[in-house]
Order: sequence, then structure tokens, then C-alpha cells
Amino acid sequence: MSKVTIVAKLTAKSDCIEAVKTEVIKMLAPTRQEEGCIEYRLHQDNADPAVFVFFENWKDQAVFEQHMETEHFKAYVAAVSDMITDKTVHRMTEVG
Amino acid sequence: MSKVTIVAKLTAKSDCIEAVKTEVIKMLAPTRQEEGCIEYRLHQDNADPAVFVFFENWKDQAVFEQHMETEHFKAYVAAVSDMITDKTVHRMTEVG
Repeated sequence: MSKVTIVAKLTAKSDCIEAVKTEVIKMLAPTRQEEGCIEYRLHQDNADPAVFVFFENWKDQAVFEQHMETEHFKAYVAAVSDMITDKTVHRMTEVG
Repeated sequence: MSKVTIVAKLTAKSDCIEAVKTEVIKMLAPTRQEEGCIEYRLHQDNADPAVFVFFENWKDQAVFEQHMETEHFKAYVAAVSDMITDKTVHRMTEVG
């Protein structure tokens, strides 16, 4: 198995931006301590603050799958589910 | 001015995937040599190989603007313009 890069984009409802921001920031510390988590970086769009992007790198697909079974990930998904309008997750491979 | 993160996603036409891949790979070497280019990383989606994402970090907006004035950037834009169905560029700020 090889490294997997995750690019996850989510868009908060206009009246939930700060609440979503609180939840996504909560993910940083516990996720970065997970075994196999190489990189876990969060970004907010400068023009549209409702848009957040996680840029992640994981040792392999298996540890990424484990990540999605953690308590903090499940709590995050539950917490934001009613506060977002859109979410896309790309599993990718670095090129070059 | 502070660091700016760029997340750029482009989708190739189904019959132009390899041609677009050639063009995006060509961007890596000259761009990484540009002054103020902190990070310039390319990814291809595992499930849909037509989807490419650049993850970039630039010293500030000014050097990113300069990047878009370079010969290699202009040549790349011209080369892929008829070969892609979609392109989004997010200018972002890292959080946490």
C-alpha cells in the first residue's frame, strides 16, 4: 500500500460558518496524533469564508479508513452534518 | 502580506486525460524554481483520473500574481484551455 492524499472540501451554511470552523479546528490535534497521519492541514477560503479545505496525507488507505472510525471523526461528522451545504472528498495520488 | 495557499482543481475531458497530465507535470519544475514558491504539489484522483488538484503555498499574494504572469503559466493555460471541462481556484489561508 502507498501514501494517499486526501483533499476534502466542505461548504458551511451561511449562518453556520463560525460553528463549522470551531468543529473543523477541533479535528486538528487528535487527528495529527493518529498513527500514520503524515500531514493534516486546514484552510479557509479568502473570498468565501464558508469554504474549508483539508489537505491530508496518510501512510496508506488502511490508516485513513481507521481515521474515519475514530470517535473524534464520528463526532465531527455528526456535529457538522446539519451545518454544511456541500462536501467533496478526493482520494488522490501525488504526481511528480 | 502573508502566505497564501492555493487549491486548484481541474477536470480533463475524458479523451484528454493523458494530454492534460503531460501539461500539468510540465508546470512542476519551473514553478518550484520561482522566487516565493514555498510548495507546489500535484495530485491525481484515484477514482477519477480526469481530476487533478494542485496544492500550493506562496510567500504572499504578490508572488502568486507574478506566477500567473510567467511564460510557463501562460503556456500551460493556453495548452489546457480546450482540454478541460472545469477549473476552480481557491485562494486560502491556513488555519491552526
